[in-house]
Amino acid sequence: MDVEERLAALEARVRAAEDHLAILNLLNSYGPMVDSGSAERAAQLWIEGGGYNFSGGTSQGTRLEAPDRLVAMYRGDGHMGLVKNGVSHLTATPVIKVDGDEATALGYTFVILREDGRWFVFRAAINEWKLVRTPGGWRIAERFNRTLTGSDESHQVMRRILEQ
Amino acid sequence: MDVEERLAALEARVRAAEDHLAILNLLNSYGPMVDSGSAERAAQLWIEGGGYNFSGGTSQGTRLEAPDRLVAMYRGDGHMGLVKNGVSHLTATPVIKVDGDEATALGYTFVILREDGRWFVFRAAINEWKLVRTPGGWRIAERFNRTLTGSDESHQVMRRILEQ
Amino acid sequence: MDVEERLAALEARVRAAEDHLAILNLLNSYGPMVDSGSAERAAQLWIEGGGYNFSGGTSQGTRLEAPDRLVAMYRGDGHMGLVKNGVSHLTATPVIKVDGDEATALGYTFVILREDGRWFVFRAAINEWKLVRTPGGWRIAERFNRTLTGSDESHQVMRRILEQ
Repeated sequence: MDVEERLAALEARVRAAEDHLAILNLLNSYGPMVDSGSAERAAQLWIEGGGYNFSGGTSQGTRLEAPDRLVAMYRGDGHMGLVKNGVSHLTATPVIKVDGDEATALGYTFVILREDGRWFVFRAAINEWKLVRTPGGWRIAERFNRTLTGSDESHQVMRRILEQ
Repeated sequence: MDVEERLAALEARVRAAEDHLAILNLLNSYGPMVDSGSAERAAQLWIEGGGYNFSGGTSQGTRLEAPDRLVAMYRGDGHMGLVKNGVSHLTATPVIKVDGDEATALGYTFVILREDGRWFVFRAAINEWKLVRTPGGWRIAERFNRTLTGSDESHQVMRRILEQ
Repeated sequence: MDVEERLAALEARVRAAEDHLAILNLLNSYGPMVDSGSAERAAQLWIEGGGYNFSGGTSQGTRLEAPDRLVAMYRGDGHMGLVKNGVSHLTATPVIKVDGDEATALGYTFVILREDGRWFVFRAAINEWKLVRTPGGWRIAERFNRTLTGSDESHQVMRRILEQ
């Protein structure tokens, strides 16, 4: 390769590494935002019209659309009760695959809640995030989340790792 | 340095950063594979003849060889009981040091298990992974794992960080 | 841009990615050091005169100065009791922002302690680390840590993410 080709190849590789690290930062900023009740900023981690599809309670799966439905959830009594109690929405480092202006992340998240002077795992889930590059940086297009109950659906999310 | 030297230096540095991120992806793909019962794919994270040496129960340390012995373990009733119950094999982000075609990672892993509508830490361990570059990407050559019981052996694994 | 400009831009971008990964390694080396009683090496993750400000117990916030006060804490009966019992000081991957020779990291840490054949979350906290580049690599200048009790102070630390 000549100098021009080597520079172009390097620029593309550096951008992919930067993208990987930027997505890691994006997903790890979610916890401190929702755990401090910063509802609007948390919802802005998604693109407008993006979604968060999660299971829990008696629900088989609910998709909330960003930003309004997410803001409402993070402002609701259920979520704000966690915030006042002391909580961490922990994003375990996911497998991140960048493909141009799109990316996928797959990994676990945990909600760690205070109780009687210690903390416990209130919720554990597997997640697939679909991410897109925007003029303002990487954002979440869709987050699909299922709790770890041994269900077929949770195992199917995990097995998307096999296609990456 | 002239242009040629600067390009060569950059290419080496970019490769090292890519290697770091590729190893992070490799180690974080383990959980979703074993937790969904994808035994063969999990075992293929190791090179053929590679090993997983772990403590637990009454054992002082067992080394299982990849891929057959690992596949058998992940297909066994003990492991599949966890899968059906709901479980996360969580890899905490380790310290990763890349040295050409070899690398070392050192860090914690946790098995988070469902019980009575919440989750608890069933197993916590310190790990040293020896990794190698192969034509198919980075793979695990050896994983050495000891549970956090305050044992000398577990502390010795942790202290390998001092030599890195 | 001409070749010289493109090389200079690439060199700066590669250094920023390397810095991000080096800080990730630095913060993740803390656990294996303190959990194996390697007091001096743990304290050397800070610059001389750097500080660790944390809450806990009845304290409203204590700042210990590196290295001597930190070495004393890690050698003390309280900490060594954890080491002998079996413990993991877990650093969840933080949001890392590099700005030349300084950087900030913001994220959760957990102390996972053994009890009756399983492990539990003994301490959960939000942290802001201020980091500096030194001739020997990145080091911690200040670590500010508050447990997750739902306090205003803990939420204020989390909200520093909004300014990054």
